[in-house]
Amino acid sequence: MTEIDVRQKVLAANAAAAQALREAFDASATLVVNLISSPGSGKTTLLEATARALKERLRLGALDGDIATERDALRLERAGIPARQILTGGACHLDARQVEKALGEEARLAALDVLFIENVGNLICPTSYDLGEDFKVALLSVVEGDDKPFKYPAIFSRAAVTVVTKADLLPHVDFDLEAVRRQVATLNPAGRWLVTSARTGEGMEAWFALLAEELSGKRSRRLAAAPVG
Amino acid sequence: MTEIDVRQKVLAANAAAAQALREAFDASATLVVNLISSPGSGKTTLLEATARALKERLRLGALDGDIATERDALRLERAGIPARQILTGGACHLDARQVEKALGEEARLAALDVLFIENVGNLICPTSYDLGEDFKVALLSVVEGDDKPFKYPAIFSRAAVTVVTKADLLPHVDFDLEAVRRQVATLNPAGRWLVTSARTGEGMEAWFALLAEELSGKRSRRLAAAPVG
Repeated sequence: MTEIDVRQKVLAANAAAAQALREAFDASATLVVNLISSPGSGKTTLLEATARALKERLRLGALDGDIATERDALRLERAGIPARQILTGGACHLDARQVEKALGEEARLAALDVLFIENVGNLICPTSYDLGEDFKVALLSVVEGDDKPFKYPAIFSRAAVTVVTKADLLPHVDFDLEAVRRQVATLNPAGRWLVTSARTGEGMEAWFALLAEELSGKRSRRLAAAPVG
Repeated sequence: MTEIDVRQKVLAANAAAAQALREAFDASATLVVNLISSPGSGKTTLLEATARALKERLRLGALDGDIATERDALRLERAGIPARQILTGGACHLDARQVEKALGEEARLAALDVLFIENVGNLICPTSYDLGEDFKVALLSVVEGDDKPFKYPAIFSRAAVTVVTKADLLPHVDFDLEAVRRQVATLNPAGRWLVTSARTGEGMEAWFALLAEELSGKRSRRLAAAPVG
């Protein structure tokens, strides 16, 4: 087999596992959100703020992918939601079988309203691996530069939602927010766009509203698809 | 062949190409620096400042790896040094054969004093691919969080130099510089450590001095190894 053959085989096996996950998530009406960004864009910080704001209203949980350390899952546990770390053994992305195995071992993550999957910090590798999620979220901090969507087009064209983070730092950096918005709109005309700061709270209500709306949509679709009688 | 076999074969082919590059770089006494970081940590900005400061004294040039866009090479050309973009076709790292091909096509990058190779923005994949460089530099901006060396241990243990960037933003973020320094020292006791801001100029003289010292060391070793008579 060539390198390309092997990659196709790996992706096909992943797609099959992702489909099984998606059926299980549909059956429990769990909204699943796959968060993808560079290291340090603020995935865990966004989820900490989300956990603190919504944990009394919704059953939330998280899987955290990393090369090393259990730090992110510990942070989310401290924010009050069940979280399990998946160490990828050096791989630069999560795959569907790792998600399946972790869910099988962690009863606290069964039957949630929303499961967040925080992928390995990487703007490239996680893009191709379906984890059975409802949608992908791409995060981009204002400190990373305003050329990033066009430099990493795959993730920004596939993510249903782009969340700009650390907006409180805008006065201190050169970052043309409108140029970034246009790049994302070019790559993904139907994509949604939020500008946030976990530190000041800017944009967080819009993020919570988006999650509530998506969860409600998922539940409605499930009812509509249920067999009558 | 399994996935692991294929990976071993790819890395072996890369090692052979890297060895040929290293011999050519040694023959021309060109210092080669492989810069690795997350997207947006400031690799191109560091190189722009380096080009502006040193281009009258040293023959500098750059290769810029990216998934898409020729933006980084254009920025370095504008800063006054020859630069060539390598588009990786979706791959999350440069490999030695791409470097060899680009150098073969770009006469302006022959016989330089220092060749900078700006790798694809990624803290994981580039780590395993030798490009024939003298040393790797890992960049980490103060906005990415102070847990990163332990979360991405491979690159921080293999990079001879860690450059902390965007130090001008330290007053605006939570970033324990000393904790990061200790993590890097644990992973790589012999590693060198610089704190910089391309915006204020902090640490830039130390970076230029490090380059001059490494170039001088390379030239001395070459003289020492030359056949007598």
